Amino acid sequence: MRNVIFGGANSLDNLFARPDGGVDWLLWSEEAAAVTMDSWKSVDTMILGRKTYEVARRMGPGPSELAGLQSYVFSRTLPDEPGVNIVREDVAAFVRRLKGESGKDICILGGGELARPLFEADLIDRVGLNIHPVLLGTGVPVFHAMTRSIQLELEDCRRFKNGCVFVSYRVIHT
Amino acid sequence: MRNVIFGGANSLDNLFARPDGGVDWLLWSEEAAAVTMDSWKSVDTMILGRKTYEVARRMGPGPSELAGLQSYVFSRTLPDEPGVNIVREDVAAFVRRLKGESGKDICILGGGELARPLFEADLIDRVGLNIHPVLLGTGVPVFHAMTRSIQLELEDCRRFKNGCVFVSYRVIHT
Repeated sequence: MRNVIFGGANSLDNLFARPDGGVDWLLWSEEAAAVTMDSWKSVDTMILGRKTYEVARRMGPGPSELAGLQSYVFSRTLPDEPGVNIVREDVAAFVRRLKGESGKDICILGGGELARPLFEADLIDRVGLNIHPVLLGTGVPVFHAMTRSIQLELEDCRRFKNGCVFVSYRVIHT
Repeated sequence: MRNVIFGGANSLDNLFARPDGGVDWLLWSEEAAAVTMDSWKSVDTMILGRKTYEVARRMGPGPSELAGLQSYVFSRTLPDEPGVNIVREDVAAFVRRLKGESGKDICILGGGELARPLFEADLIDRVGLNIHPVLLGTGVPVFHAMTRSIQLELEDCRRFKNGCVFVSYRVIHT
């Protein structure tokens, strides 16, 4: 079955971005780029929240054009737009259906708000984080409070030259 | 100058304990014990918050008897007690003075509430975390929202056999 993957670059205090979405603290590295390229090989579908979609759109071409992937943007407020799949239904129901269809892996992009109901519905299969050597202090959380705990199995751990630590986990489904 | 050290065992979603203080999810390992023993060699002073102190007291002998260390408990509500140094003053002012005195390193034990004003006052020198392969979902945070960001330098990163990842950082003072 297709894996649902959640993750990204985070601070040691588990934030994805500053309060305004700023990612000035991100460290680029060939090592991180190689890991990212490698993990995207297995992905053909992206799930984005509205905020992440708006940041991505400001940064250039639409995310699906960028990567040649099928993408879905979850929003109750965005108007329909040509070339963008705006989804208004419950994210867990949608992803559960998508996992049942044939295809490659599904990547959850951006803030933890979208990931929270997916974790709670036990629909996420892998978690990957590139932990940056910084405490941002305040910003956009990677993990929101959840109604359950989730056991993980460490699959990979790499120390990058720039002081980042890449960790990747498999979710132990219950 | 004496180092002020903050850290402990945390979940991947950066919690020190379940909402009731529960640490049933902690994995014991010889590797973690060795790292802990090693880091305690440089320490002669412990700073505890009230909640951590009460948990430690329930678990057996007082923390200072356990380790033969000087310990200070920060609380505005605890009554004086023989053999316990209850401190009622501002934690940042107290730790700043302690750092100026001669002695070995100072360890901040327990929840992030005590650490937050110390990070904000740039008084913490090292951060060490033993990241456990679990998302607790809700509980006692390691890092609270802060008024500033803090740059770190990765000093150590070890993958333990039980799936924990130990990371230790030096704070880059500003």
